[in-house]
Amino acid sequence: MQGVLDIPTELQGVQGVIADAFPRVIEIFEHQLVSDLPPVDEMCRYIERYRGKMLRPTLVLLCGIAANEHHSSLIESEQHEQLCTHAHSVCGAVCEMVHMATLVHDDVLDEAEIRRRGQTLNMLHGNETSVILGDYLIASAYELCSSLDSPVPSRIVGNASAVMCTGELLQLHHRDNHSLDEATYLEILERKTAALIGAACELGAICTLGFDQREHPVAQALLSYGRALGVAFQIQDDVLDLMGSEAQVGKSVGKDLEKGKLTYPLIHHLAHASEQQTLRSLDLIRCAADRDRTGVPQLIDAIRATDSIEATQSLASSFVERAKHELRVLPDSPGRAMLELIADAVISRSY
Amino acid sequence: MQGVLDIPTELQGVQGVIADAFPRVIEIFEHQLVSDLPPVDEMCRYIERYRGKMLRPTLVLLCGIAANEHHSSLIESEQHEQLCTHAHSVCGAVCEMVHMATLVHDDVLDEAEIRRRGQTLNMLHGNETSVILGDYLIASAYELCSSLDSPVPSRIVGNASAVMCTGELLQLHHRDNHSLDEATYLEILERKTAALIGAACELGAICTLGFDQREHPVAQALLSYGRALGVAFQIQDDVLDLMGSEAQVGKSVGKDLEKGKLTYPLIHHLAHASEQQTLRSLDLIRCAADRDRTGVPQLIDAIRATDSIEATQSLASSFVERAKHELRVLPDSPGRAMLELIADAVISRSY
Repeated sequence: MQGVLDIPTELQGVQGVIADAFPRVIEIFEHQLVSDLPPVDEMCRYIERYRGKMLRPTLVLLCGIAANEHHSSLIESEQHEQLCTHAHSVCGAVCEMVHMATLVHDDVLDEAEIRRRGQTLNMLHGNETSVILGDYLIASAYELCSSLDSPVPSRIVGNASAVMCTGELLQLHHRDNHSLDEATYLEILERKTAALIGAACELGAICTLGFDQREHPVAQALLSYGRALGVAFQIQDDVLDLMGSEAQVGKSVGKDLEKGKLTYPLIHHLAHASEQQTLRSLDLIRCAADRDRTGVPQLIDAIRATDSIEATQSLASSFVERAKHELRVLPDSPGRAMLELIADAVISRSY
Repeated sequence: MQGVLDIPTELQGVQGVIADAFPRVIEIFEHQLVSDLPPVDEMCRYIERYRGKMLRPTLVLLCGIAANEHHSSLIESEQHEQLCTHAHSVCGAVCEMVHMATLVHDDVLDEAEIRRRGQTLNMLHGNETSVILGDYLIASAYELCSSLDSPVPSRIVGNASAVMCTGELLQLHHRDNHSLDEATYLEILERKTAALIGAACELGAICTLGFDQREHPVAQALLSYGRALGVAFQIQDDVLDLMGSEAQVGKSVGKDLEKGKLTYPLIHHLAHASEQQTLRSLDLIRCAADRDRTGVPQLIDAIRATDSIEATQSLASSFVERAKHELRVLPDSPGRAMLELIADAVISRSY
């Protein structure tokens, strides 16, 4: 996320700590995925390009910093390793690996062709290889996580991964359900996206506070911050899938319509359009699901006419505010200010 | 495995301990997969029918018993709970869950229609649901495993799962490779099947000996026993896929030929047939990969003519002997005798 942020001077110290720790996260990540089998190794090297915004490792490290009550003075005295330990780096690499596994499987399910401006693995090596490589990434993430001294991080990651899957299953269950309501939509987002982002924040916190400190108010607050942030992040992702171009977003777009996934702009639109317009829009939605995209511009015009993009942005903003509100238990500090900055960035991004 | 074995009188005590522990394994298994989402819960109930021979939980429990040097007297005094603790049951459930996840994903990859004499999940709910449900099973297995006090079982399970995936990837890499050699074939089996069966045995041992006892000679011996047994088991599976009928085996057969997987009977046959016969057999193999099964009986006749089934059975037997040889560090005991019995049963089974 760092590349997209304008970092004010007073936060450049925090940014420096994260920038120092990042090479260790990447080293651990790459080291875990080295295989003695050349064809496996080659594919692991290929999918490393899927690493994008690195939101989850950033949040592990940053929550780790923010949970340290002495972080301002540790930054000043340049004691960076005390703020971002080996455990923080491991948890950062683990979260990115779990996330990457879901990207690999999502691309199979979505029949996506483009990811991070390159061909997806399923296009290059077929669905079978992609399914198993996704499994390999998940297993490697768990193996890496269990290298820590305590089973608690594995417990958090295992649970978050299971909840993510239930979110995906719930979404599949509601495929082509054109009367999907806001509550169910948000339930899907909380599970499929927010659970892992929340886990990343919680892991960062307990790497600092101690693995037995899941009940600590700061750990709880950062978990809630991450969950709210995750919902906002996914709402923005859904807007980009509907309105963005492949060139801008860097991955296949329009997949939600094609896969019969109703996202918030459409849910809001269908609830606020005239009866006649609703019928017309439903027709256009069905055509898009049949891969006839000719009616999509007309559908987007209709969505704009009911102010549904603004309503979606306002929903995302409310989750950003909720995320920032959770941070009130933390003292005013550079770590907290950076978490607030990231929360805002999550919905202002265009990729 | 118990249903298939003729248990001699002197081993009925061991069998009783396992029979007592099994309901706890199943209870833990089912409890972990309960979901608050009805559609997810329904699918979990469906795939519970995939539970078949329960070889892996049986091995966890039995290795746990055999690693206990007082097991004979504990069986006699009916102190079963001291032999099979909560940790043994958890590890048994975890291994079965990981195994079941691979069955669900394998069925997607193999486009299999039948599993345990019923329709596969991918036939009923589609590939997307099956991929995610497999992921859900893996994640649930890890979550369950990390509920134990130590990260060591998670480390073993995470590593075994990752190795399994590399075995599957290696197998895919060699699809349609008609010059696959014995060494590579065995490498695939050691990874895709033997790693998890070995892990089951090691887990059983350290649940008894202590989680810090991975280097204990008994733990090492049981790990090696499990690995050798796993190779024998998979060789027999490959024979059944080639020679068995769906009615007898209870799942889709002939999948290896269809998927371009060369298994030992064919590797041996191609290495021992005349040049002319080799060319004919390669043609028949190619036809079967194109789903034309009319030449399969002719191919099987050719395989028999080079004594390749006998050679395969002899290879499997050598791994059973190797497995039994590993047990020599254990004292002569009911636990050891039962492990020997299971080793023999693995290659005499017809399903």
